[in-house]
Amino acid sequence: MMNIDLNNDTISALATSPSEGAIAVIRVSGKNAFNICDKIFVGKKKISNAASHTIHYGNIIESDNIVDDVLVSIFKSPNSYTGEDVVEISSHGSFLIIKRILELLNDNGARNAEPGEFTRRAFLNGKLDLVQAEAVADIINSRTEVSLRGARNQLDGLLSAKVKYLRDSLVNSSSLMELELDFSEEDVEFINADVARKKITEIVSEIDLLLSSYSFGKVVRDGVNVSLVGVPNVGKSSLMNYILKESRAIVSEIPGTTRDIIREEISIDGVLFRLTDTAGIRFTEDEIEKQGVFRSREAIKNSDLVLFINDIREGVSEELYNELLNIVSRETIITVMNKLDLKPEYVDEEVVSISAKTGEGISRLFEKMKEIAYGGKAYSEKSAIVTNSRHYSALKKAKESLGMAIDSISSGMTGEFIAVDLRNAENALGEIIGEVTSDDILNNIFSKFCIGK
Amino acid sequence: MMNIDLNNDTISALATSPSEGAIAVIRVSGKNAFNICDKIFVGKKKISNAASHTIHYGNIIESDNIVDDVLVSIFKSPNSYTGEDVVEISSHGSFLIIKRILELLNDNGARNAEPGEFTRRAFLNGKLDLVQAEAVADIINSRTEVSLRGARNQLDGLLSAKVKYLRDSLVNSSSLMELELDFSEEDVEFINADVARKKITEIVSEIDLLLSSYSFGKVVRDGVNVSLVGVPNVGKSSLMNYILKESRAIVSEIPGTTRDIIREEISIDGVLFRLTDTAGIRFTEDEIEKQGVFRSREAIKNSDLVLFINDIREGVSEELYNELLNIVSRETIITVMNKLDLKPEYVDEEVVSISAKTGEGISRLFEKMKEIAYGGKAYSEKSAIVTNSRHYSALKKAKESLGMAIDSISSGMTGEFIAVDLRNAENALGEIIGEVTSDDILNNIFSKFCIGK
Repeated sequence: MMNIDLNNDTISALATSPSEGAIAVIRVSGKNAFNICDKIFVGKKKISNAASHTIHYGNIIESDNIVDDVLVSIFKSPNSYTGEDVVEISSHGSFLIIKRILELLNDNGARNAEPGEFTRRAFLNGKLDLVQAEAVADIINSRTEVSLRGARNQLDGLLSAKVKYLRDSLVNSSSLMELELDFSEEDVEFINADVARKKITEIVSEIDLLLSSYSFGKVVRDGVNVSLVGVPNVGKSSLMNYILKESRAIVSEIPGTTRDIIREEISIDGVLFRLTDTAGIRFTEDEIEKQGVFRSREAIKNSDLVLFINDIREGVSEELYNELLNIVSRETIITVMNKLDLKPEYVDEEVVSISAKTGEGISRLFEKMKEIAYGGKAYSEKSAIVTNSRHYSALKKAKESLGMAIDSISSGMTGEFIAVDLRNAENALGEIIGEVTSDDILNNIFSKFCIGK
Repeated sequence: MMNIDLNNDTISALATSPSEGAIAVIRVSGKNAFNICDKIFVGKKKISNAASHTIHYGNIIESDNIVDDVLVSIFKSPNSYTGEDVVEISSHGSFLIIKRILELLNDNGARNAEPGEFTRRAFLNGKLDLVQAEAVADIINSRTEVSLRGARNQLDGLLSAKVKYLRDSLVNSSSLMELELDFSEEDVEFINADVARKKITEIVSEIDLLLSSYSFGKVVRDGVNVSLVGVPNVGKSSLMNYILKESRAIVSEIPGTTRDIIREEISIDGVLFRLTDTAGIRFTEDEIEKQGVFRSREAIKNSDLVLFINDIREGVSEELYNELLNIVSRETIITVMNKLDLKPEYVDEEVVSISAKTGEGISRLFEKMKEIAYGGKAYSEKSAIVTNSRHYSALKKAKESLGMAIDSISSGMTGEFIAVDLRNAENALGEIIGEVTSDDILNNIFSKFCIGK
């Protein structure tokens, strides 16, 4: 844990959302939180003399003028969100009042908090591990029920517990190796090779389980990027519109960066799908069209899923399909035959036949989309799931190191070498929950938080 | 006070602003607030058993699943905002969590609050008078320092105290009249005519003072609507842009309802000015232009102030000026001669000469705008000011009734007649602070509040 000393000052920020509401809550945390607030708050009792977890009515005062009448909530270290002394000032939800109170807090020594700084302090003070801290941001950013439950699962510590358990197991094995290391100079034979290999292999397979949950977990946390591709007049817009109507659209329209890419977010059974309607993807000489093609190809490249839409009467556009295969892998493409209402006798098990007009086949399309999105496998929300690319990378790193350790054992290397690999794996696992960390990792994580959290 | 019985149920609403933030606060108020919250909250202690003004950590639970970990703040009647039992649930600021908690509260008997219903209950339970209740909405809606202080002044009760004092004085005089009324049948002569007339005249002049503060108060509360008018190429847009740059623009651009009217809000010394750049106002045969002209004329009609802009080299456009006088009164027009940089020798005390290019004369223009906006008179923020048209109308009604009472006294009418006038005046004053009120008045006031206040 670094940076503790740098974090010894008192910070303040608006904790509620930065737009007008009936009330707003400003949070102050740090060693001087009580003293600073006492300088601008006048109530029956001084904040410094009040008991923890009590609420007090009074006025925020600026040179004898009442800025606002407020409630202050008092939390004494370590029984607060950050683990420090915390005051929450609940004021009227006016921009001007919020601004003024924050200025007064600043003037009296509570500087503006950085994004995520409250949660960072909670982590540094041991109130949350790093996975849980990250889950706080995920909870706030969740757009669908599924992603919310995934984040909740993480805040409740399911992944943390699993990773901690694996790390502890490793530390034990590692201790054995270290022991062996002590003896190695005396040329004592490494007796426990098989035991150690077996133990490590067990841990690797548990890590594998976690790694394989990521295709599901990523969908849970980040949703699924879907491109709609098709030659003109196959009914892409009709399908887009039908889907938006059918699934409860979360956001009616997120203005695309360009006129020829239209993005919409929808929720299908609680899973977030981000649909992008693309323009042409075939190369052209026209300068303006060229840009459109480039953007479309980028959108498709970033897709987890491509809906390749065809007119059922025309058949599959082979040319476009081949073009698509240059951009994405076959497994991510769902071939959709639209306008089933115009050719109801059509049957082909290899594709999904639908009618964007009547809605026939759409539920099958949704099933197929979820199936591919989840990588073929859905996990129970009560099991430890990896949803975060940082955790995924660290687990992969741990697995690699363990693989090297197993190789070393098999090839009869000395404990010295094996111990290094095991320690690397330990550190990789420790990075996930934050038992091993660096300012860079923390900065990277918390800079993505909103201010006030 | 009506409607008390109708308001006996328990209400709930999001009290913080309805967009994502680090935390959100949901407010529950009513007789069953504690019991209802106990059904969905699990902490160390039951809410019903907790002391007032204490905070408790726990989980919001839905059929064994944790919806969120929250803090609940407990306020026991009458020591709460509404005067009822109140629970404030502080959750993570996610839409989905807020929605779920509100649904759970609903399912357990706390219906959704109407706009302003918490404050309405505070009023009905005597925690605030009606002027103060209205000030709560004004505080949240304040866009500038000046309007915020005006609203604060009202929440602190300056106007309420004044109106209460006037009403009490009237009630005393009125009692004298009633006394006289009792005797009138016995033909006792009305001895106190002069005393009564003097007393009432005093009250009228105090009401006059309040009424005259309204031109200032309206500006304080609602800001000033300003139209920029001028023939093409006199530099309207340049002036608009210069003003926006000079005054700190509050809102960079509020999209106008039409392409030919552009609105901007600016703050000059804390006063809100709403600038509208108008298109032509002269009648035309062209259908599309006709609509533009109509909208421009409407905008000008709704202005408190017109900036009539001319090119200093061309002189005042008499034709346009006369057209303007058909729409607004002479006093609201400021004649501005622009492009002073091109004719620096120009002097005319009747107009405001400026250069939108160099900024010369702009501060004089701002002074003139404030002067006209305030109706020539600024009031101390520490005195009682009328800022609300409802209060203004009621004061006018009171004044009228008092005028009739004075007439009646002067013409030697019996106390019976006078007493009716005095009672009308009393009621009008009572309406302001809410001592006399009706559901219609209350509905009208509180429907303008946001939900959760």
